[in-house]
Amino acid sequence: MKATVFHGARDVRVETVPDPAIANPGDAIVRVVNAAICGSDLWPYRGTAPWQPGARLGHEFTGVVEAVGSGVHAVRAGDFVAAPFSFSDGSCAFCRAGLQTSCEHAGFWGGQENDGGQGEFVRVPFADATLVRIPDAVRADERKRVAALALTDVMGTGFHGAKAAGVSAGGTAVVIGDGAVGLCGVIAARYLGAERIVSVGHHPARLEMAQGFGATDVVDSNDPDAAEKIKEITGGTSAVVEAVGQQSSLDLALAVVRDGGTVSFVGVPWGMSTVDFRRLFGGNVALRGALAPVRAYLPELMDALAAGTIDPSPVFTHRLPLPGSPDGYRAMDQREAIKVCLDVSAA
Amino acid sequence: MKATVFHGARDVRVETVPDPAIANPGDAIVRVVNAAICGSDLWPYRGTAPWQPGARLGHEFTGVVEAVGSGVHAVRAGDFVAAPFSFSDGSCAFCRAGLQTSCEHAGFWGGQENDGGQGEFVRVPFADATLVRIPDAVRADERKRVAALALTDVMGTGFHGAKAAGVSAGGTAVVIGDGAVGLCGVIAARYLGAERIVSVGHHPARLEMAQGFGATDVVDSNDPDAAEKIKEITGGTSAVVEAVGQQSSLDLALAVVRDGGTVSFVGVPWGMSTVDFRRLFGGNVALRGALAPVRAYLPELMDALAAGTIDPSPVFTHRLPLPGSPDGYRAMDQREAIKVCLDVSAA
Repeated sequence: MKATVFHGARDVRVETVPDPAIANPGDAIVRVVNAAICGSDLWPYRGTAPWQPGARLGHEFTGVVEAVGSGVHAVRAGDFVAAPFSFSDGSCAFCRAGLQTSCEHAGFWGGQENDGGQGEFVRVPFADATLVRIPDAVRADERKRVAALALTDVMGTGFHGAKAAGVSAGGTAVVIGDGAVGLCGVIAARYLGAERIVSVGHHPARLEMAQGFGATDVVDSNDPDAAEKIKEITGGTSAVVEAVGQQSSLDLALAVVRDGGTVSFVGVPWGMSTVDFRRLFGGNVALRGALAPVRAYLPELMDALAAGTIDPSPVFTHRLPLPGSPDGYRAMDQREAIKVCLDVSAA
Repeated sequence: MKATVFHGARDVRVETVPDPAIANPGDAIVRVVNAAICGSDLWPYRGTAPWQPGARLGHEFTGVVEAVGSGVHAVRAGDFVAAPFSFSDGSCAFCRAGLQTSCEHAGFWGGQENDGGQGEFVRVPFADATLVRIPDAVRADERKRVAALALTDVMGTGFHGAKAAGVSAGGTAVVIGDGAVGLCGVIAARYLGAERIVSVGHHPARLEMAQGFGATDVVDSNDPDAAEKIKEITGGTSAVVEAVGQQSSLDLALAVVRDGGTVSFVGVPWGMSTVDFRRLFGGNVALRGALAPVRAYLPELMDALAAGTIDPSPVFTHRLPLPGSPDGYRAMDQREAIKVCLDVSAA
């Protein structure tokens, strides 16, 4: 089959790799329909993360079940399914508690061990626990079908960030970052009923998209008075989602959160080196790391998508066939694309 | 009156200062009965905190109301009262939410502006909101009267730390630090119904006291395998109270907390420089700063003290008259005393 393979900094290629096969009774083979390129894929792409040549890429995909092992009962061949960005056994204490990212058998797509999402097929371990069926109404609707791809990571991550920060109905939320996750954080805050939602970023087109998603206010993160402006708008907010992963955005989050509030951070923290402990202490502020257990949220978010309550599809500004994957990386790297959807096969 | 005054590193003196007087209608004048020396008083004492000579010392005291301003109605002359380590107006949004440490008019005892607790009298602003009456049964019982002094800071702080970390009935708690706050954290965890309570420190006598307070297990923090031992005992705990304020204790807290759990830190973070963001992120761990709103807890803890449910009095290993205050500082500095109680006047 064809799959996207890492060769070095800014060198990813679509090439032929071995076809996957059922290895364990709990496995399923999924033919990928749509796959996404993630902001976190840019860390190896840019050489920041020390990946080895030959590593497979991609951890966001939807697809059609082609075959299942003898132990798989929840999905069957022909089902259209979504996979969260990590797989999990569904039976350990963490899975039962809804924290599938901490599953004792958790694994991430791609790398040296597993198939990546940006390819034609994926072997899915623990298929019963990992995969979630996508309703026919979503499968049949082009826009919703693409939106479902967002639920495998960025939408679930934005939702987790909003919940972890304590966003609640009638309340106020600040979302720092106008990338796909930040934008999905705005959708989530709206979905959770926040009345005042401030989107913070520095790309005018993305902030405009945030407004379309429900942001009541936007603030330029490059404005030296950004913190004061946010505090003036919100009058103090107890829920801040940090969706950038840099020191400056963490600092801004701590500057604007209300005493007693929570800052969740939802991105891989590549760019954070320290935190203002005095601020956390004196202000009774919680800093909550928030790697999203997307699997826990997929059913609820799929329902919301099917019902038309949420629609993250606009974050996919670019669509390309699988062979265009390297172009997709370039577009993401140069910030031409918010997020790229690869059209791999027919649904 | 006589009061303890800061003159420089390891130079505190009891000397004559002006008698306080009612300055605002909301003020009360309190004749101090008992005052404590706090671990956080050691920061200026050791020269770590840049205090100015002439600053008054002490932020923990109980006493008898001598006089009240025209606007004071909740307490009257002759009442025996406890004051939390900070005063607050009782009417702002933070006070109403039970976060009195963030009160718009919050102030701390001592320094250049306010009387300190380690003196004969204290002018108490916002007396109605700040002071809490101590029941006669506590006043009349020497042991409980001294224990009440602990409620003004360390017991309230240990309680806040335990609540902020999510200690719950039937659960497990790890308390790192065997100082007065850590020991009170153990009392609080027991009070909250935790079934397994691990006290971590390196002073055998203090760890023995922790066992008397309800710790089911003790671990030597200097043991290179401390983290493994704690994890083996607890099988993973979601509630960790960090009551030291040093980098090594924060690191240990993050090493032993279960994914999805919370580390609260309750001490002024003088010795923390960074945090393992990857651990917070990947493990969905919350780091919660926890400067205790002691005022919010005083009524409940006073009831528990009166009922005999809690008894933090053993943390006061040393008692001295007010003129012995400098000796008390030396005993705390040299770790001869866990905590010093000054007997200033009769109850």
